[in-house]
Amino acid sequence: MEFTINQIAAILHGKVEGDGEQKVSTISKIQEGKKGSITFLSNPKYEEFIYSSKASAVIVKTDFVPEKSLQTTLIRVDDPYNGFTRLLEEYDKLKSYSKVGVEEPSFVSPNSEIGENIYRGAFSYIGSNVKIGNNVKIYPHTFIGDDVSIGENCILYSGAKIYAETVIGDNCIIHSGAVIGSDGFGFAPQPDDSYKKIPQLGNVVIRNNVEIGANTVVDCATLGSTIIDEGVKLDNLVQIAHNVEIGANTVIASQSGISGSSKFGKNCVVAGQVGVVGHLEIGDRVTLAAKTGLSKSVKKEGSIKFGYPAMDHRDYLKSHAIFRNLPELRERVNELEKKVVNLPAN
Amino acid sequence: MEFTINQIAAILHGKVEGDGEQKVSTISKIQEGKKGSITFLSNPKYEEFIYSSKASAVIVKTDFVPEKSLQTTLIRVDDPYNGFTRLLEEYDKLKSYSKVGVEEPSFVSPNSEIGENIYRGAFSYIGSNVKIGNNVKIYPHTFIGDDVSIGENCILYSGAKIYAETVIGDNCIIHSGAVIGSDGFGFAPQPDDSYKKIPQLGNVVIRNNVEIGANTVVDCATLGSTIIDEGVKLDNLVQIAHNVEIGANTVIASQSGISGSSKFGKNCVVAGQVGVVGHLEIGDRVTLAAKTGLSKSVKKEGSIKFGYPAMDHRDYLKSHAIFRNLPELRERVNELEKKVVNLPAN
Amino acid sequence: MEFTINQIAAILHGKVEGDGEQKVSTISKIQEGKKGSITFLSNPKYEEFIYSSKASAVIVKTDFVPEKSLQTTLIRVDDPYNGFTRLLEEYDKLKSYSKVGVEEPSFVSPNSEIGENIYRGAFSYIGSNVKIGNNVKIYPHTFIGDDVSIGENCILYSGAKIYAETVIGDNCIIHSGAVIGSDGFGFAPQPDDSYKKIPQLGNVVIRNNVEIGANTVVDCATLGSTIIDEGVKLDNLVQIAHNVEIGANTVIASQSGISGSSKFGKNCVVAGQVGVVGHLEIGDRVTLAAKTGLSKSVKKEGSIKFGYPAMDHRDYLKSHAIFRNLPELRERVNELEKKVVNLPAN
Repeated sequence: MEFTINQIAAILHGKVEGDGEQKVSTISKIQEGKKGSITFLSNPKYEEFIYSSKASAVIVKTDFVPEKSLQTTLIRVDDPYNGFTRLLEEYDKLKSYSKVGVEEPSFVSPNSEIGENIYRGAFSYIGSNVKIGNNVKIYPHTFIGDDVSIGENCILYSGAKIYAETVIGDNCIIHSGAVIGSDGFGFAPQPDDSYKKIPQLGNVVIRNNVEIGANTVVDCATLGSTIIDEGVKLDNLVQIAHNVEIGANTVIASQSGISGSSKFGKNCVVAGQVGVVGHLEIGDRVTLAAKTGLSKSVKKEGSIKFGYPAMDHRDYLKSHAIFRNLPELRERVNELEKKVVNLPAN
Repeated sequence: MEFTINQIAAILHGKVEGDGEQKVSTISKIQEGKKGSITFLSNPKYEEFIYSSKASAVIVKTDFVPEKSLQTTLIRVDDPYNGFTRLLEEYDKLKSYSKVGVEEPSFVSPNSEIGENIYRGAFSYIGSNVKIGNNVKIYPHTFIGDDVSIGENCILYSGAKIYAETVIGDNCIIHSGAVIGSDGFGFAPQPDDSYKKIPQLGNVVIRNNVEIGANTVVDCATLGSTIIDEGVKLDNLVQIAHNVEIGANTVIASQSGISGSSKFGKNCVVAGQVGVVGHLEIGDRVTLAAKTGLSKSVKKEGSIKFGYPAMDHRDYLKSHAIFRNLPELRERVNELEKKVVNLPAN
Repeated sequence: MEFTINQIAAILHGKVEGDGEQKVSTISKIQEGKKGSITFLSNPKYEEFIYSSKASAVIVKTDFVPEKSLQTTLIRVDDPYNGFTRLLEEYDKLKSYSKVGVEEPSFVSPNSEIGENIYRGAFSYIGSNVKIGNNVKIYPHTFIGDDVSIGENCILYSGAKIYAETVIGDNCIIHSGAVIGSDGFGFAPQPDDSYKKIPQLGNVVIRNNVEIGANTVVDCATLGSTIIDEGVKLDNLVQIAHNVEIGANTVIASQSGISGSSKFGKNCVVAGQVGVVGHLEIGDRVTLAAKTGLSKSVKKEGSIKFGYPAMDHRDYLKSHAIFRNLPELRERVNELEKKVVNLPAN
């Protein structure tokens, strides 16, 4: 995609200073600008870069006064950061909206219903009794099992795997390699020391505006549904076990794992590499610091937990500060023992 | 699939009370029943739900006496929990047995041998010199490399990747995105600070009745075989490095990683996010608690290890109980020092 | 592939002792040799196995003097270990060089440029404006998005997913299920407690001689590039977040995660299950021990860090040694308190 600087200025209601007929085709940081790119200057800390930048255009404040000469064209706006963000969003939309239509070979079972304005990549697979809404993008190698339902405006990137009976809402993004609806890890020990598989007959329900990272796994419920509520964001390589429920607008960072049947409230924040054992209840707005291992329910709203087994965040930090100096503490006990050795025990 | 309540009662040798000609097509928890579903009541704790349940049928004990009026049809049996479990298993079989036949396009090299009663999904790939037993289900996008051998009654879900020369036994389930036989992580440091790849020429051997979770990785051996023994269950996102051996009926929970050449005995239990360093020997029936980091061999049968570096489970808990109160312990030392400050050191 | 022992001896400039016309087709450890395999004896510790080995040929030192009778043919060379390693490399080359040509159906957009001597597996997908160098092997189900560039001699195993605009150098290996270029995890909190996606418009740049493990994820930059520098080796299930830079010849073991914008120097070693928070700077030759959680920058070359929050390796071990015996330390404080209870505080 290519636009003239004048065209972009019109979108941003900005004023052009310099050659407005130059074309830009990409977006860059101000430190990394090159011919054909557009960038912005908002924080004065970065002002030095504008004088050496090779970007074709820079979005600046209305009242910006250069201290040296400039090679670049300026677009003056009230708020350069907001202007730049709008530009990012427009650019992103243009890029992803360009994918429409069907590439062959692709596979669709005859009794599925697929909406309008769809992209179906080559080697994508759609099972039977599937329902897919309008404006959905299904990249190559995506697997959509039987009886799956997907809302509008979703993107499933290459190699996303959606097991049978999964329900996905509107405006969801599922990244490559994510697996939704695989069997929960349930086995019954047998007298001969082997394990017998417990059939996993439930499904996964993903509500609207959810994003699921690359190679993340969400298992189906044994019975009923594993639920990922509205607005949840899961990073890459996350594990969500069977019958878990993740409350609205909760974010979970990479490589964290939530064990079976645990339930999170709304607006929780789970940092990376956290582990949560099964059957816990976690309230609203709870934060789990990175690498925390949570083994008890945390019902109090706004709690912050840290460490393993998890403690209140501040308590953990206090204990850890002493842990760092344990050799000194032991030395002090050694000294005390030398001093009191002759006193009789009371 | 749809059955009448009378048909189900016949399977369970139960007695129908109510309208046995109603049809049921799904299975639910008693808290979540809806028209067309069947559920069960075993634990008296859940009895309240039977009076409000919208399930079409509930399996109850022979001697169940309702305290209020019921909307639902009853099936009376000796053991409702066992009856329900049998129903789950039958339902599961019916669902998965329905997949048979070949979807096109799919790819099979001419010199491979494939058994009878097979499901081969669209876009599945079978390399040369592959042997596959009867009743195997190969979902779409599965990759089976050259010289692979797979036994009977296996299921490979969409996007499972089986590298060349892997051997898989009977009754195995490999979930989506699992990678079996990728190169071990072996590199020789060179004088110029770069690394030279050590060729990984071994394979992976998976014995009978193994289940491997979604996006789990099992690397091939450098030479010889990485071995996953009979009845092992690996959860999602597990890492098994080159030349590892996992003993029969061992279960490993999600996001745990076993480093190169470590060997597990039989019937071990590895909880989630555990790490095991390379070249260790772990005996039979050893348990590693969640997030444990094991850096030494544990040969004693039945050991339970916890923490990092791992300690005996009870010792870790004792030390951690004091860790939680380290600020108090330090305060006590502070107090002692004040009291004994005037005593001369002995 | 089959060779006579004489043919192999010629490659290694070795001298045959025994039947050199026997054929060998595989490579084994000396403990596991079987008819048709070749192995080596370098470390005298393993000498006992040569007398019982069923291998058809064993590479030994020029001056090796057997103490008992042998069933196997010998190839005498100056350095058996080096000879064997050369054989491994030759064998590996022969195996992987055998894959050339195009399997159908595969998908290539018309305006892509693909080099010579290529393997393109069935169901592989190549988007538009893609450039691929000579001698590249693209296994089945690989996805290569629009505007991707790949150098020479690369291998992309089945199901590798390369998002649009990724740049990959020469001699790189990308294992099955690895995802390169997925969206960074960036969301702006909104007044209604929901999150708004920050468009991720950058890319991933992978330089020469990089190997990326199975199911590992490397996110694209928000703007600019996530950079994996020359000679880096990433194990399986590793997470590399947006705008991270990994310096040349750094190795990162399985299940470690590097958060957004952190930058590693050259020749670092990151063990398994390590977590690194965002926006850190790590110097050259820094080692992070297994399961370490790094929350501060480590600029000093050659530092070794351990624990969480990370400490100097030796300090952590010292503190942990006392942690193991905290109950004893507390008991000593209890004893001291009893002894000094009657002393007045100063």
